Amino acid sequence: MEIITSLENKKIKNLSKLLIKKYRDQEDKFLVEGEHLVEEALKAGKLIEVIKTEEYEIDYEVPITIVTYEVLKKLSNSVTPQKVIGVVKKLDEKEIGNKILILDNLQDPGNLGTIIRSSVAFNVDTIVLSENCVDLYNDKVIRASEGMLFHINIVKKDIEKFIDEIHSKGYVVLGTRVTDGENIKNIEVNDKLAIIMGNEGAGVRREVLDKCDKYLYIPMNESCESLNVGVATSIILYELFK
Amino acid sequence: MEIITSLENKKIKNLSKLLIKKYRDQEDKFLVEGEHLVEEALKAGKLIEVIKTEEYEIDYEVPITIVTYEVLKKLSNSVTPQKVIGVVKKLDEKEIGNKILILDNLQDPGNLGTIIRSSVAFNVDTIVLSENCVDLYNDKVIRASEGMLFHINIVKKDIEKFIDEIHSKGYVVLGTRVTDGENIKNIEVNDKLAIIMGNEGAGVRREVLDKCDKYLYIPMNESCESLNVGVATSIILYELFK
Repeated sequence: MEIITSLENKKIKNLSKLLIKKYRDQEDKFLVEGEHLVEEALKAGKLIEVIKTEEYEIDYEVPITIVTYEVLKKLSNSVTPQKVIGVVKKLDEKEIGNKILILDNLQDPGNLGTIIRSSVAFNVDTIVLSENCVDLYNDKVIRASEGMLFHINIVKKDIEKFIDEIHSKGYVVLGTRVTDGENIKNIEVNDKLAIIMGNEGAGVRREVLDKCDKYLYIPMNESCESLNVGVATSIILYELFK
Repeated sequence: MEIITSLENKKIKNLSKLLIKKYRDQEDKFLVEGEHLVEEALKAGKLIEVIKTEEYEIDYEVPITIVTYEVLKKLSNSVTPQKVIGVVKKLDEKEIGNKILILDNLQDPGNLGTIIRSSVAFNVDTIVLSENCVDLYNDKVIRASEGMLFHINIVKKDIEKFIDEIHSKGYVVLGTRVTDGENIKNIEVNDKLAIIMGNEGAGVRREVLDKCDKYLYIPMNESCESLNVGVATSIILYELFK
């Protein structure tokens, strides 16, 4: 059994490029870390190969490369990475469903991961990311999603065109706005529904917001101006889709 | 007008120690960064002094020290800090109220900040932190709280003793548990209520959970095992306290 011990090993050097978006896009692959995520990738039929340390025991029918812990660290942004890393094929974009969450320019990877997790919990079937959202395959997104990205259809779209398209198919599009919005407790839920949430600081862009059919807000104490976007999204999904 | 330009300046060196918990505890002070947080500290009557760059304009009746941006960076963990930093007196612990959130061994600073923000939004009056929670005055906690820590009573307690104490005062104590729990939609809300949420990985400790009067769960799709703890806490507060 061969163990890769050199930090200059070509295979490892190439794989470590997958920590950068440009190379993930070029190669159509990404990395996941730790047993839970590797198993989720395997179950989804997307696991290409595994890189692990000698003592870490797994029994998957994919190529396995054994490396020292120092070498494995080159494939992770964590200070103390877990001892197994999966090389995974990017997910396919599927047809959109009837319960859609649209994210406009969401920037924080932790927020995107959390929102993916909540979307699966509350039965969203399609997440639509604007072109300028944080990369879905960013390691922090994947970690925060707890592997839930393998359980939901996630597609990338030009949001404005996409809203026109689903409007013509009879979807109701909801935005969030405090003034002239309806309390989420009172919103009537349509069969074909899309909810738009926006950037952490700026919210949903005005030109996108203008395309919404209805506006909703979460009732809250006046001392608090706003919620974390991951929390706000999750409460709306809980209230409307669960 | 004197401008501090030396990274070796004694005052700055002393203040930079407030980035470390031990010194925050010793000095009973902490740092906040950016106009919004400094103003929240001022409004709360806790702002001791301000450190800022020359071009940053403010007009507060507290001592102001002007420094170069390089010097100011010594007072922040951010790569590109905002140009005003406040030195703030730690908050006082007040009497507990009737709507209590207890956090047992919560570790992620972003989660604690988010939960503080949601607690203010949904009318919690007291947050109780176990001794081993992440430090309330950690810069990431403060940033994620968006200054809401100045709008709520936060106290540190031995959780097990605290539960016995509030039990004797007629509070109902709720824990989260999927098995044998009640759907949060159906929970009857008592006048004096405490909700316990736990650690990101391990949840609430068994010995603490055993002390609860009732258990609740958030209904969700079976593909998803659990929610982010900030999200779960926020949904429970939204459902029970709003």
